[in-house]
Amino acid sequence: MSLIAVGTMAFDAIETPFGKVNQIVGGSATYVAYAASNFVKPIQQVSIVGYDFPQEEMESLSKRGVQLDGVVTVPDKKSFFWSGRYHMDMNSRDTLVTDLNVLLDFDPVLPESYRDAEFVMLGNLHPSIQKKVIEQMKARPKLIAMDTMNFWMESAMPELEEVLKMVDVLMINDSEARQLSAQFSLVKAAKAIMQMGPKYLIIKKGEHGALLFHEDKVFFAPALPLEDVFDPTGAGDTFAGGFMGHIARTKDISFENMKTAIIVGSAMASFCVEKFGPDRLKEITAADIHSRIEQFVNLVNFDIELV
Amino acid sequence: MSLIAVGTMAFDAIETPFGKVNQIVGGSATYVAYAASNFVKPIQQVSIVGYDFPQEEMESLSKRGVQLDGVVTVPDKKSFFWSGRYHMDMNSRDTLVTDLNVLLDFDPVLPESYRDAEFVMLGNLHPSIQKKVIEQMKARPKLIAMDTMNFWMESAMPELEEVLKMVDVLMINDSEARQLSAQFSLVKAAKAIMQMGPKYLIIKKGEHGALLFHEDKVFFAPALPLEDVFDPTGAGDTFAGGFMGHIARTKDISFENMKTAIIVGSAMASFCVEKFGPDRLKEITAADIHSRIEQFVNLVNFDIELV
Repeated sequence: MSLIAVGTMAFDAIETPFGKVNQIVGGSATYVAYAASNFVKPIQQVSIVGYDFPQEEMESLSKRGVQLDGVVTVPDKKSFFWSGRYHMDMNSRDTLVTDLNVLLDFDPVLPESYRDAEFVMLGNLHPSIQKKVIEQMKARPKLIAMDTMNFWMESAMPELEEVLKMVDVLMINDSEARQLSAQFSLVKAAKAIMQMGPKYLIIKKGEHGALLFHEDKVFFAPALPLEDVFDPTGAGDTFAGGFMGHIARTKDISFENMKTAIIVGSAMASFCVEKFGPDRLKEITAADIHSRIEQFVNLVNFDIELV
Repeated sequence: MSLIAVGTMAFDAIETPFGKVNQIVGGSATYVAYAASNFVKPIQQVSIVGYDFPQEEMESLSKRGVQLDGVVTVPDKKSFFWSGRYHMDMNSRDTLVTDLNVLLDFDPVLPESYRDAEFVMLGNLHPSIQKKVIEQMKARPKLIAMDTMNFWMESAMPELEEVLKMVDVLMINDSEARQLSAQFSLVKAAKAIMQMGPKYLIIKKGEHGALLFHEDKVFFAPALPLEDVFDPTGAGDTFAGGFMGHIARTKDISFENMKTAIIVGSAMASFCVEKFGPDRLKEITAADIHSRIEQFVNLVNFDIELV
């Protein structure tokens, strides 16, 4: 029941109203791995890093059951670097710097040992790279989920359309859903996007929660109301890691189980935003996760017998 | 188990991306009455109208169990008139015209038959008027809820602080909660506001749902994802009407029952936005309401046994 996590492993510089870090480990595959490894082993990581990526980080991931055979290290280049600034409304951010560095060379080749994985999480990358990963699988995985972003809708729409036909679950945020579908209503957007390929659509709304659409069904999970959202970087990828981790652990891809997976993903994301980068994800225990999920139950549970 | 509804009964002119009406009945007490009368009778209405307010509307309310003894008609003045325009993002609106008209004379005197009501919903009005209504009650009602707005925070804060000490439930939107508390985080805002008097705080977030705070507990109800939000006018008052209607019907003011009341309020609000003004509220049946509440159950219910 292995889970492939494809994406970036990178450095971020982050500024929020609560503080600033000049260099912290980040990247979509890093967050997916830290979140998913609470639920399933092995995570089969596919990424590319430069000479500067810390060995301690690799060891920390490895200890959590993350296989690194699919992570290429380029000896004469730097790791991908992103720098951004958040304001009080954490739902939007300004990108200050994007240094692609090693990402320009990313041409993932799946190790033989990865090619029969049942679950695949494709982080936000050029859709051609996402497609190439899928094509290397020996058999059709049980569930393929992908993230993408507005940039690819503007610069690589034909390739994006192709890969959308190959996946089961698309995870995007509300503004991306509106852009991809040219519909303002998220319900109409969901219908249009599910026509493009994915049978399941997750629309992430940051502090306003997440929606899961499938056929004519819809499920909503709130974000946990927190005193402070300290740093939202990686929250979407952490959500994806929690979601896919739960799915891979249970091997149940029903709509009902995806609801639970969304709650698990939301719980993991609620930890992620409590500290800079993946710091909080590194310290939480199974008991922390369990108690956080209980908070979600209390947050939305109500007694309908009275009505 | 009567419910007093204090507020405006008015005319609105509304422009949305979906259409335009030049004159439709509106006003906070109108929406509260249409929503609450599905659950409890009598509704004891307290308001003021001009010579132009339609008799058919009075009859329509009366037939639903709304008592109008507390509604004053001013023979030589026009009813309160509001005109506004919504854009695609229905969470914000431009006010085009506000003609107070009869509202300048509003000095509510509760009919004797109202003064032992157990439940009171104070619509958004000058806090001195809200206070005056409370002072006319014979005994402390079982539950007093109130709405307010940023305008009173800016122009009548001392009076607002006084009335906040006298009520049980405050219902405001997220930007008002931030303004009232001077806190950006809604969790911190809630703590600060509950220090000001109300033991329960409902923060309405429009299409992003509503939060109920009490002591250290929090409950979240989503808004129903709709294909189109046709006209959000009155949705907040309709929510209040559904909430108080359920509370008055069950006479149960526990936190647990308030959760259900919030779902009922959200269900009523989801009808309100489907047509202009209160039109949709006038046509729905008990079966419609029941099936809509079932949709909310499906929207948020998940199986936690798997985790």
